[in-house]
Amino acid sequence: MINIGIIGSEGRMGRAIAEAISAAGHTIAGGIDRDGDAGALAAASDVLIDFSSPSALEANLDAAIAAGIPMLIGTTGLEERHHWLIDRAADQIAVLQTGNTSLGVNMLAYLVEEAARRLGEDWDIEIVETHHRMKVDAPSGTALLLGEAAARGREVALNDVAVRGRDGITGAREAGTIGFAALRGGSVAGDHTVHFLADNERLSFSHLAENRGIFARGAVRGASWLVGRPARRYAMREVLGL
Amino acid sequence: MINIGIIGSEGRMGRAIAEAISAAGHTIAGGIDRDGDAGALAAASDVLIDFSSPSALEANLDAAIAAGIPMLIGTTGLEERHHWLIDRAADQIAVLQTGNTSLGVNMLAYLVEEAARRLGEDWDIEIVETHHRMKVDAPSGTALLLGEAAARGREVALNDVAVRGRDGITGAREAGTIGFAALRGGSVAGDHTVHFLADNERLSFSHLAENRGIFARGAVRGASWLVGRPARRYAMREVLGL
Amino acid sequence: MINIGIIGSEGRMGRAIAEAISAAGHTIAGGIDRDGDAGALAAASDVLIDFSSPSALEANLDAAIAAGIPMLIGTTGLEERHHWLIDRAADQIAVLQTGNTSLGVNMLAYLVEEAARRLGEDWDIEIVETHHRMKVDAPSGTALLLGEAAARGREVALNDVAVRGRDGITGAREAGTIGFAALRGGSVAGDHTVHFLADNERLSFSHLAENRGIFARGAVRGASWLVGRPARRYAMREVLGL
Amino acid sequence: MINIGIIGSEGRMGRAIAEAISAAGHTIAGGIDRDGDAGALAAASDVLIDFSSPSALEANLDAAIAAGIPMLIGTTGLEERHHWLIDRAADQIAVLQTGNTSLGVNMLAYLVEEAARRLGEDWDIEIVETHHRMKVDAPSGTALLLGEAAARGREVALNDVAVRGRDGITGAREAGTIGFAALRGGSVAGDHTVHFLADNERLSFSHLAENRGIFARGAVRGASWLVGRPARRYAMREVLGL
Repeated sequence: MINIGIIGSEGRMGRAIAEAISAAGHTIAGGIDRDGDAGALAAASDVLIDFSSPSALEANLDAAIAAGIPMLIGTTGLEERHHWLIDRAADQIAVLQTGNTSLGVNMLAYLVEEAARRLGEDWDIEIVETHHRMKVDAPSGTALLLGEAAARGREVALNDVAVRGRDGITGAREAGTIGFAALRGGSVAGDHTVHFLADNERLSFSHLAENRGIFARGAVRGASWLVGRPARRYAMREVLGL
Repeated sequence: MINIGIIGSEGRMGRAIAEAISAAGHTIAGGIDRDGDAGALAAASDVLIDFSSPSALEANLDAAIAAGIPMLIGTTGLEERHHWLIDRAADQIAVLQTGNTSLGVNMLAYLVEEAARRLGEDWDIEIVETHHRMKVDAPSGTALLLGEAAARGREVALNDVAVRGRDGITGAREAGTIGFAALRGGSVAGDHTVHFLADNERLSFSHLAENRGIFARGAVRGASWLVGRPARRYAMREVLGL
Repeated sequence: MINIGIIGSEGRMGRAIAEAISAAGHTIAGGIDRDGDAGALAAASDVLIDFSSPSALEANLDAAIAAGIPMLIGTTGLEERHHWLIDRAADQIAVLQTGNTSLGVNMLAYLVEEAARRLGEDWDIEIVETHHRMKVDAPSGTALLLGEAAARGREVALNDVAVRGRDGITGAREAGTIGFAALRGGSVAGDHTVHFLADNERLSFSHLAENRGIFARGAVRGASWLVGRPARRYAMREVLGL
Repeated sequence: MINIGIIGSEGRMGRAIAEAISAAGHTIAGGIDRDGDAGALAAASDVLIDFSSPSALEANLDAAIAAGIPMLIGTTGLEERHHWLIDRAADQIAVLQTGNTSLGVNMLAYLVEEAARRLGEDWDIEIVETHHRMKVDAPSGTALLLGEAAARGREVALNDVAVRGRDGITGAREAGTIGFAALRGGSVAGDHTVHFLADNERLSFSHLAENRGIFARGAVRGASWLVGRPARRYAMREVLGL
């Protein structure tokens, strides 16, 4: 039984994490939001889960370091300097930052990288995702995470090969590119499919999230896995043993 | 057994049509291309199938009128004046022009129109298609045909509601829009899916073409159906009895 | 705002219906279970929703008749004599009994019937469904409902053409049959796909339920639609205007 | 440019292999059928591809051994004694026997094994396949090959966990089982999907063959890869570098 502190506890993800902690048989050390005292929370916790905002990241990391406990970060919208802060904190504590805490998505990313490494460029890669009608950006962070996995398998930079929002007279498909398409509608929690399309045959790898609970469940599993680990920056793949 | 003349006989579709005519137990009256004599071909045929170019359309229609035989038109890239020529010819002969001769696609369009008519605007409509890597435009003509069907069911103009190539910071989905996405790769002959996405449930209607033979098969079925019909402009839906 | 009474209010569906009533802006007149007084509940309600058990059906119908209010029945496991009771009640009140209250599934059934009517027997029909690991029977009631729709479109009896649990040396597929397959796993609320498979092309029509809430939402919509209707037996299709 | 001899050259696969050899820029050394002289063919070839019958296997292997050339075997219906013959031949020549020569299917099997190894038993495995209406057995050999891969990943024997043809009152799904379902219709060359279904999320891995040409293409690629390899029994996975 692990004692978990929640940063961003009143947000949609924070509440889902509280439920997931109880469901997993762990205890909630406490929760804070905008004006909360991260230091006091850290002192009472075995590990922190942070789904708040980039602006709070530095103070949260400092609190974890001071208490000598690990921290899992699911906050989105991080920039280069935030990653630099995380790397620095990783000298002193175990830290895991991820764009998607779902175990299924991370499994998918691993398999996509394997497939991209082994299949030649005559297998065209296309990534399509569907999300609810309220989502304001496209493609999803998870689609980009999958694209990064495919690009890594091919040993190219995603930015050099990504084709987004195909429309109009596009010309024939350029070899080696990775296409992205985004559908929006209803209450879809998140569908992602990576296609590998060759002459006369196709491989398609899909993940479907039935609801947002899986992201909370994955965060709790990742946080409990971090407890007792040596200082270092970890990835969700390691939680899965990939 | 019907005697069918092929205009555009040396093109990819022309050759597929020749095969489909034989497979259906009909006979090929002859075939012409760029410099062929449409009049002579029409005189020897019970019906014409035209998969050539818009510039040849007027002469081809005149030949069919002179011979008093019907004509099926699958030529793409038609403009308003071509439709005017077709309407005029339809005063004298039976004519059928269509963007897709596949029976399955036309069935799909009919059902999509029905669904769009009966389901409210809280069912978001998204259309996604996949084609081979050589296709130079997006979305496909068939995707647009399906979008037209959905728009007709909702009694709106497709141009007023179409959202194409979603990418970047798009904002939340606007109610009543119809989204399009295009995937390209491999040798895919043509997959089309129309999604209706509501709160907590989804309907998806798909057509998959295994190869281009179905378009030829549909053209031959349509042409043989036209023989003996009174002068008028027909649609593929009528061939299906929709 | 309609006042709705719930029979079977403590069951999983009963609780979901209570939520759906509030979400739709209606009020809950009350709820009863095994030993409740249906007469008192009916006297306080504008309409009843019954998701209890077949054994309680007769008393529930009598209560609705006495109060002169309509009733929507979603109870499963009904036998011939229950349908006879419903038909008899329908002489005095508006009654709607259905195997699936989801609007999407009923829309799908309508479209499948249309497709089956219009496509010849050279389009083979196969129905596949996926449900959570706790489901104890196969195929699902909804898969059978879709099979009935397809059979009705072809003017055959489903029992004469259904092929279930294909396994081993089956021989070639018999023309005119309708195949069923069932997948089980995870927490899937219910996926259903009806395939029409022809030479070189395929049509596939799918419904996906993200959770069981849609069944409650459909029940409430159906119940409110019943209020004020003349005595008769209705179907969910009529709620949709199909 | 490699000189390839075809055993079973008049069969459907034999003709497809002849086309694939030419398309790949290799040459056809010759082809034999029921009464052909395998010894003479082997003497004129760099490698043999055998898609004939189990009864001819021994003579074909002897011919390859006498000529000192490798052999790829795609013949189906092999029994234990045939595998014993192949193992014995592999002491003297390079031999590759496979139930599916498609590169995509072998890639899929590799990824399914990886996924099954890394995902716990709370991810239920279900395999569904679709084939044309003439196929006489279910599930397909390829579905079983994928099931073997999943079972290997979980370190269980497929026979101990396979559930086929689910129908009727089945009870809840038993943990650790692998389900199979088969759809039949139209001219489908072969679709296979392996689902991993957990609480609230799902992974699905699919392969779609557009036509049977891919099996011929894979056989030619495998045969050319065998040329010059030391004596041993190889697998299609090795051709892919898996």
